[in-house]
Amino acid sequence: MSDERVVVELFFDIGSPYSYLAATQMADLSERTGAEVRWRPFLLGGVFKATGNEMPARVPAKARWMVADLHDWASLYEVPFVFPTALFPKNTLLAQRALTAAPAPAVPMFALALFGAFWVEGRDPSDSAVVRACADAVGLDGAAILAASGEPEIKAQLRATTEDAIARGAFGAPTFFVGDRMFWGNDRIGLIEALLAPDAR
Amino acid sequence: MSDERVVVELFFDIGSPYSYLAATQMADLSERTGAEVRWRPFLLGGVFKATGNEMPARVPAKARWMVADLHDWASLYEVPFVFPTALFPKNTLLAQRALTAAPAPAVPMFALALFGAFWVEGRDPSDSAVVRACADAVGLDGAAILAASGEPEIKAQLRATTEDAIARGAFGAPTFFVGDRMFWGNDRIGLIEALLAPDAR
Repeated sequence: MSDERVVVELFFDIGSPYSYLAATQMADLSERTGAEVRWRPFLLGGVFKATGNEMPARVPAKARWMVADLHDWASLYEVPFVFPTALFPKNTLLAQRALTAAPAPAVPMFALALFGAFWVEGRDPSDSAVVRACADAVGLDGAAILAASGEPEIKAQLRATTEDAIARGAFGAPTFFVGDRMFWGNDRIGLIEALLAPDAR
Repeated sequence: MSDERVVVELFFDIGSPYSYLAATQMADLSERTGAEVRWRPFLLGGVFKATGNEMPARVPAKARWMVADLHDWASLYEVPFVFPTALFPKNTLLAQRALTAAPAPAVPMFALALFGAFWVEGRDPSDSAVVRACADAVGLDGAAILAASGEPEIKAQLRATTEDAIARGAFGAPTFFVGDRMFWGNDRIGLIEALLAPDAR
């Protein structure tokens, strides 16, 4: 018998509201299934460009429905959610690079701080002061994280993570992998649980 | 106290695999929530045209994921599903007109027969012999249904149903309404239940 835990990879972008919702559920998913969640910041804009996919908000009727839908999920999850109408959509390149520069064990808390800044408090994730403050708030060295974000190896690492997701079939966010099984969307967490813990349902 | 049951409207198109999956769950939804499901055949092609939305399968990476996703839901629901690769997508104008011509109480059974023909047995829903056989199989007069499908008032009724859905915000299928609350997608049945029977969760 192996002691290795099943790994659920979570590819996410701070600019994606469904990524925020999914991120709030990862501790529970881990607890219910025993799986380890590996948080992998990627660049959703790069995924859209490579796959020909587009923001769901491109269709006006869908954009109107999405706002209600996001609030429904937030209510179901009992997490706060305020659509940052004046800010959305935002370029998340800096935020995703900063996440890439953070040490792996700190990524979940740092990501949740950035998600909360954008999707609850309406703070701009493309503003380096916001990124720095979120890093500092979770015990990281925000100034060092910002400096590292500009380094070629961090930029290359973010590109590589994005390309890894695309190569494995991703076209949106959040995207989960359990081995080579891909699940797209906050609304697929239930399917992941059904796969990992079928008897718990 | 009123005896009136809450009504869940289900807008669906036989050509939509997620409509098929949702359709298989309506009896359970009704049982769990006490709601009455009102089946409303509309024309998804008309909805796409009016809203600028497109088939999810337009993006190749999404199309590949969808086939696995559809099988995952079918497995979760314990219903049969065989993607009709050689047939999809099919023009469903005849099937949607035939459903519109059927008496309301027969629509769920007739729809499930048509869904099963296309999404389980790989029979062509644009073939009038298939539509007729499905009607006959559920105790309707298939020949009469086919004849009625060509009548101007049935064509106008299908257009009106489609326009009603569009006017209320629909952009895809299946689309549910609970009053003026709209829910899009098979994957939102859980949210509908949370709205209708919050204590049951």
